[in-house]
Amino acid sequence: MPSVASRPVGVFDSGLGGLTVVRQLRRMLPEEEIHYLGDLAHLPYGTKSAGEIRRRSFGCARYLMRQGIKALVIACNSASSVAYESLRRNLPIPVLNVIIPAVEEAVAVTRNYRIGVIATYATIESRSYAKMLERRCPEASYFMKPCPLFVPLAEEGWLECPIASGTARNYLLPLKKKRIDTLILGCTHYPLLQKVIADVMGAGVRLVDSAIPTAQRLKALLKGKGIYYPESRRAPIRIHVTDYVRNFTRIGEAFLGEELKNVRLVKVP
Amino acid sequence: MPSVASRPVGVFDSGLGGLTVVRQLRRMLPEEEIHYLGDLAHLPYGTKSAGEIRRRSFGCARYLMRQGIKALVIACNSASSVAYESLRRNLPIPVLNVIIPAVEEAVAVTRNYRIGVIATYATIESRSYAKMLERRCPEASYFMKPCPLFVPLAEEGWLECPIASGTARNYLLPLKKKRIDTLILGCTHYPLLQKVIADVMGAGVRLVDSAIPTAQRLKALLKGKGIYYPESRRAPIRIHVTDYVRNFTRIGEAFLGEELKNVRLVKVP
Repeated sequence: MPSVASRPVGVFDSGLGGLTVVRQLRRMLPEEEIHYLGDLAHLPYGTKSAGEIRRRSFGCARYLMRQGIKALVIACNSASSVAYESLRRNLPIPVLNVIIPAVEEAVAVTRNYRIGVIATYATIESRSYAKMLERRCPEASYFMKPCPLFVPLAEEGWLECPIASGTARNYLLPLKKKRIDTLILGCTHYPLLQKVIADVMGAGVRLVDSAIPTAQRLKALLKGKGIYYPESRRAPIRIHVTDYVRNFTRIGEAFLGEELKNVRLVKVP
Repeated sequence: MPSVASRPVGVFDSGLGGLTVVRQLRRMLPEEEIHYLGDLAHLPYGTKSAGEIRRRSFGCARYLMRQGIKALVIACNSASSVAYESLRRNLPIPVLNVIIPAVEEAVAVTRNYRIGVIATYATIESRSYAKMLERRCPEASYFMKPCPLFVPLAEEGWLECPIASGTARNYLLPLKKKRIDTLILGCTHYPLLQKVIADVMGAGVRLVDSAIPTAQRLKALLKGKGIYYPESRRAPIRIHVTDYVRNFTRIGEAFLGEELKNVRLVKVP
């Protein structure tokens, strides 16, 4: 077995939200061992300066490189926006973010070229989705909507109750009126609320959970380079965190969709 | 007119929440000029270390001292918990926090000695209310409940809708079952949700908005020292902020209950 193929894939995020990306990697690339780094001691990245986000992202990437990873997935929207280009140029391994696959998927599936993006205030104000959409598909119309209640709803586990659906209606009916046919879930917490989001938007609107095109792209990339793990298995997963947060296990397991095991508290300077 | 009496009162918080305290000061001490400092560049304090909260609090206090204040109100639960004692010992002017007046009011009005406290996770985990209640009234029973959705609801301005009342029911019905007769609103954002909170708790439960006993205590203190502003007037108010946040004006005016004027962006090292 070639040694590179047997190495793990690294994934990092400022919090636990990136575990929704790991969940799709586990579903679509079950043979690949994952090392997840949650930089919980420094969350959220969204309110930090670009320089500080870049410094933290390089710290995370260096830590995961020392674990011997063969590819890196930036599962954090703020780091994807600010640190992707320099990580991609400076690391000797393939680097993916969650924004480009989501934008390319949205552009591929839209029929009426009216695309919505829901995300945190910080992500929308960074204009990372807007800039990428304009670059990839300048002829489309884009509609952005911050949904600040969605993160605490996901963390409380209030996913399908009347409060979640009422909140979804408040945020999404104005987007629906814009007659979008594609909606990017631009925050790693939002896939947990997919059901109430879909109920409001209706069957005519395609939801893009960035984790899925990101996993597809990683799979194609590893296969293309001949470094996909060559045997059938259910690979292990390792979780590294720089701090614990309240309700760590409950939230982490809800996001990951499986039991949280092999969790290590680590220092990332 | 004695010069000390004509000086302003200083109030600080890490964010805009402390403006709900200023609102009660304006209502109950309309003659007193207020200088409010919102350390928005460093919010929230709740997730910072005690040492860092103390450093920020001293920075805020020094800044307000340079504005010539005659008394200081710490309108931030985290700073009230961590920095109050050392500010009180080190400043040459009277210092109040929002925790002690709320606890004393709750202990004064409870009849069945069953007291609830709702606050952010950070405030509840700091045990600042628990410790103060145990000190002032060890024979009472206390019930703490974090209500993380209340802050974004208040900031979105979703105050009396079904989402707000559903959220209040989810959080508060377990507290109501404990048969408390007094509930401390242990977060400066929560008074905005007072109506839905009162609807769930019912007429038999007294809500303690810490801003009101804090204003009463400040008034008594200034009168007692003979430094209350001696003439009838509607005093001016000055807002100093270390940064702007999204929806600054909308949120600030909702919390303050009047137009936001005289806002200055300042540096507080």
